[in-house]
Amino acid sequence: MDDPTARRTSSMRASEIREILKLTQRPDIISFAGGLPNPEAFPHNELRVITNDLLKTRYSEVLQYGTTEGLVCLREEIIKRMQRHRLDITLDNIVIVAGAQQGLTALSLVILNPGDKVAVSYPTFTGALSVFSLVEADTVPIPIDDNGMNMDILEKKLEEHLQNKNPIKLVYTVPTFQNPTGVTMSQPRRIKLVELARKYDFYIVEDNPYGELRYSGEPLELIISYDKPGETKGYTIYLGTFSKTISPGFRVGWIIGPQNLIQRIIVAKQSLDLCTNVFSQAIIAEFLKKKLMDPHKEQIRTMYKQKRDIMLETMKKHLPAGVNWTQPDGGLFIWVTLPKNINSKNLLEKAIDEKVAFVPGQTFSTDGNIKNTFRLNFSNASDDNIVKGIKRLAKVITTELEKSD
Amino acid sequence: MDDPTARRTSSMRASEIREILKLTQRPDIISFAGGLPNPEAFPHNELRVITNDLLKTRYSEVLQYGTTEGLVCLREEIIKRMQRHRLDITLDNIVIVAGAQQGLTALSLVILNPGDKVAVSYPTFTGALSVFSLVEADTVPIPIDDNGMNMDILEKKLEEHLQNKNPIKLVYTVPTFQNPTGVTMSQPRRIKLVELARKYDFYIVEDNPYGELRYSGEPLELIISYDKPGETKGYTIYLGTFSKTISPGFRVGWIIGPQNLIQRIIVAKQSLDLCTNVFSQAIIAEFLKKKLMDPHKEQIRTMYKQKRDIMLETMKKHLPAGVNWTQPDGGLFIWVTLPKNINSKNLLEKAIDEKVAFVPGQTFSTDGNIKNTFRLNFSNASDDNIVKGIKRLAKVITTELEKSD
Repeated sequence: MDDPTARRTSSMRASEIREILKLTQRPDIISFAGGLPNPEAFPHNELRVITNDLLKTRYSEVLQYGTTEGLVCLREEIIKRMQRHRLDITLDNIVIVAGAQQGLTALSLVILNPGDKVAVSYPTFTGALSVFSLVEADTVPIPIDDNGMNMDILEKKLEEHLQNKNPIKLVYTVPTFQNPTGVTMSQPRRIKLVELARKYDFYIVEDNPYGELRYSGEPLELIISYDKPGETKGYTIYLGTFSKTISPGFRVGWIIGPQNLIQRIIVAKQSLDLCTNVFSQAIIAEFLKKKLMDPHKEQIRTMYKQKRDIMLETMKKHLPAGVNWTQPDGGLFIWVTLPKNINSKNLLEKAIDEKVAFVPGQTFSTDGNIKNTFRLNFSNASDDNIVKGIKRLAKVITTELEKSD
Repeated sequence: MDDPTARRTSSMRASEIREILKLTQRPDIISFAGGLPNPEAFPHNELRVITNDLLKTRYSEVLQYGTTEGLVCLREEIIKRMQRHRLDITLDNIVIVAGAQQGLTALSLVILNPGDKVAVSYPTFTGALSVFSLVEADTVPIPIDDNGMNMDILEKKLEEHLQNKNPIKLVYTVPTFQNPTGVTMSQPRRIKLVELARKYDFYIVEDNPYGELRYSGEPLELIISYDKPGETKGYTIYLGTFSKTISPGFRVGWIIGPQNLIQRIIVAKQSLDLCTNVFSQAIIAEFLKKKLMDPHKEQIRTMYKQKRDIMLETMKKHLPAGVNWTQPDGGLFIWVTLPKNINSKNLLEKAIDEKVAFVPGQTFSTDGNIKNTFRLNFSNASDDNIVKGIKRLAKVITTELEKSD
């Protein structure tokens, strides 16, 4: 049969990051391209004790089908943790999903019709762009600066699309240690965003995979903490995940939102996969119940803080003048801006020749602009390789800058 | 915010089966309602040895993100097993999914536009109906008899919709031990279906969760074995799963199909969940590699054959005249047809009063007809409870028939 593919996927293409990742899996390349946790950050010994125990004593439950909304014991543990953020929610406000990625797909299927407007920061997480493309929504890019998404421009766009009778229905944001820039939205902007949601009647999606990985600065309130998620009138949908704290291989995340919306997401999730992997849900629930999360998180933070510091220091020491980068307080990424005339996609080819890799910035936008930027990941490489890789990169950039003079 | 839900989910409702299942989770009820494997059929001891070993020696791989197409070692093991069915396929013909349910969603997103026609047997698996509703496809019901989907009626419908310029784009079938009827499509009809696909240019989805659970009769060739899946021009998409043989809690299945289609499904799956649970994939790959599957399958077959036989014998002994049922050679289900004037939904209420449950037949259709039918599952209950439950059911039905005389 020829290619009888549906309209909704005709514009989709393999994620550029994933294609680059394949290229950078060569063992001789130091890759800052992925967004992978460090394997030494996986609590494998604790997980081994837990799985062994579960398969001995609760196999008939953990190997069986589960409910679509997720294990009660896991949802209860998550609620306990979310209460630290002043969130007053019940089991009806939460559904377990196969990673935050599935969460975003499920809620987008429920909320968005083809042609609907979705505001996203510019640049933004590629995985979000492909979901909005799948549901045929139109993205409205909103510039981001050191304090996160620009609220003045967002308000202007909200007004503009309201006038055009196609109001923005959803604002997608990674407010804390954003992917790809590492930038955090300031408190005043968080409050402003909730005010705008109430005024213009749109959903906020607060995607927060990195929030627990803070290495410096003071924690901020979650956006959803300024909202009223326990009520039907809540505007914020929160996406959480254990991918960056326990294991991405488990594919377990969660959605918190207003009950009426959660109910519809559960129905959509029945079509998507019936239920999330029950075994992994049970393992994580035990991990939380045994109070292993907080000490484990401290270990990761210490490990990643050191990696961030090493990368920033080495960049400061070796990158030539004219190159700028963000100073993230947490997360996994640093965002680099080159002089306007340097194209980071071309630079990548030369970097790979020198055995170092990153993700070109244009991957994180729909228009393919911001050609002079790229993303660096600091969590996955060894400390030594961070120094080595940044030095290689500095050499490539310096040569490029000299050529372009 | 009010209910700003997308059109595609406005017609969706919580699966009736799942709602009934909740009702029947009362421990005093003997439930033949679910489609759950028997927990004693889970190879928990073998799985415990494997997980323990994986978390000791390969934790950095099995807890990490994986590729969207799935672990190479698992795909290779599946290819080996599929070669028993004369299938000449490569790694490019197969993608691992989070259960066959996700497989059906992914391929439907890729193939079907809103308004596209999909032929399904009547009755059909509820989970398939909700996927086609999610992508806003229109289902065309094709009656099923003791030899499976009626090919004459299918051909008539193919011709009719071709004339109407909205040709049937996909035929969905569970040809072996179908859910809900337990019926198997005959060999001549399988061959005919592939011929029709070539003539009318539609995809066949061969959903085969129960194929390995045969208790009597001779195995038939897979539909895809009559096709040429290794070539771009293949018409059959095969859905497999480990839910009925190893563990449904693992949510691991696979899709086999033409390379060009598999490539697009991989792109769609990136949006759905990035990758399938890597830990469970690795566990299953090891289970297969250690050649544990065949002996384990023999154990399940012996267990389920006995349960089927006990249920059929007890039904024969106790159900009143005027009640008919299928004689499945495998799978998990028996389909019961009552006299026309009995509504099985009303009957269920009375059955629950007598502490026994089933799924009313109208759940398995979009029109809600076939009101005088219901589905029985024989895999989940203990042998004793099968006898007890069928006796209770016989009492309820006998009383109903006497009243309606």
